[in-house]
Amino acid sequence: MSIPRLFLDAPLAAGQPVPATPGQAHHLGGVLRRTAGDPVLLFNGRDGEWAARIEGLHKDRHKDSRKDSRKDSRKDGAVLVPERRTRAQDSPPAVTLLVAALKRDAMDLIAEKATELGATLIQPVLTRRSIADRVNEARLGSIARAAAEQCERLTVPQIAPAAALHAVLDAWDPAVPLLVAAERRAAPPIAQAAALLCPPFALLIGPEGGFERAELDDLLRRPFVSPASLGPRILRAETAALAGLAALQAIAGDWRNG
Amino acid sequence: MSIPRLFLDAPLAAGQPVPATPGQAHHLGGVLRRTAGDPVLLFNGRDGEWAARIEGLHKDRHKDSRKDSRKDSRKDGAVLVPERRTRAQDSPPAVTLLVAALKRDAMDLIAEKATELGATLIQPVLTRRSIADRVNEARLGSIARAAAEQCERLTVPQIAPAAALHAVLDAWDPAVPLLVAAERRAAPPIAQAAALLCPPFALLIGPEGGFERAELDDLLRRPFVSPASLGPRILRAETAALAGLAALQAIAGDWRNG
Repeated sequence: MSIPRLFLDAPLAAGQPVPATPGQAHHLGGVLRRTAGDPVLLFNGRDGEWAARIEGLHKDRHKDSRKDSRKDSRKDGAVLVPERRTRAQDSPPAVTLLVAALKRDAMDLIAEKATELGATLIQPVLTRRSIADRVNEARLGSIARAAAEQCERLTVPQIAPAAALHAVLDAWDPAVPLLVAAERRAAPPIAQAAALLCPPFALLIGPEGGFERAELDDLLRRPFVSPASLGPRILRAETAALAGLAALQAIAGDWRNG
Repeated sequence: MSIPRLFLDAPLAAGQPVPATPGQAHHLGGVLRRTAGDPVLLFNGRDGEWAARIEGLHKDRHKDSRKDSRKDSRKDGAVLVPERRTRAQDSPPAVTLLVAALKRDAMDLIAEKATELGATLIQPVLTRRSIADRVNEARLGSIARAAAEQCERLTVPQIAPAAALHAVLDAWDPAVPLLVAAERRAAPPIAQAAALLCPPFALLIGPEGGFERAELDDLLRRPFVSPASLGPRILRAETAALAGLAALQAIAGDWRNG
């Protein structure tokens, strides 16, 4: 039986009880059928990872019989007690994914997989051909938290609110190299473009229809921007985001530390 | 208006009409609202890519009014006439993905994304901890065809029937290096393991629960097998498949040809 791993936004210290969220309590009790005394692992992005025990676990037994359980004050609940630190906090190398706002399914996939691939910040950007003009940061944040729990990260990537691409670039720290996946335009292979990089770095993926020519010209004029090719096939935007991040981590990121 | 791109399993030659499948005809007429005379692009994996015209397009007008249109002989239909070859046939470098049979959603994602990433053969394998004991090759083949149409490949990857891992390894061509994504075991980073490779090569991804120890020991005893690390996080199996393929293509595959 595997040990559930939970992200909590609360200080973690030996012997100091912390409450689980109602969703986590329901998952522990109702889905995983865990009971008081069972082990869990906790992390909060600041205090490392802790082996903990479930102390109290109570179920909202009336929930299923009512239509809107959110109005009820008796929720599923759990108290968790950290016992022993199992991993010291690390600070992962800063890897930013800038991605044109895409349809919901594509953004959901990106939030999950970019978390597994070690992105520390996901910044949705609005481009001239963007399909969407907003993203649901709360939804993406919750997907990223679940992915961080599952992939054994000690941090959860930040999901920034969608912002206009030019505004993000105007505020960019020029010391951080930004690779742009450029399709249908001459660009060096990513293995070459990334060969001399080390974190912090960032990857920018455009919308399904690609950047407009003037937009790409403006991008490539910025001194911190370099174009990079992701091969001879036309990738869907979400594929480009994940494949580009994987290639960057393998070539220049934390996959290099065998 | 973008030009639809279709895979047809029929010879393509100038002026020789070819029938679309009922599904393609429905997509052209009913979804994309194309009519006779409109352009399409065709490929069959053998004769390159052809600019073609829609010659006849007829719709099964009774379909919507009946419950089971499959029993009707009057289907949506289209005749397409190749006019001019736009790309010569290429033969992509052989890149095989061996992947433990996973749940349907994960296999669907792999069929689509591995096609975009240039896999030429997807071989589902049965391992001791495999969740599934079969895969639907027809379904995966249809997903791969659609992905090939979309990503501008000239070939569709072959989807092999699921087979026992040891049987696949026993029949393996020892000249083809096979990298195994090994989690929780010392392995060189994939950038190092793949540095000297060039196609043909293959990647093996285990099941969600990982390989059994004896199974992995047996794997690593084979002279054509090398372990490779996909970084410090625990990746879902489908993430490992796509991220590993992307890293391999970037480091040693056809992404290197700027």
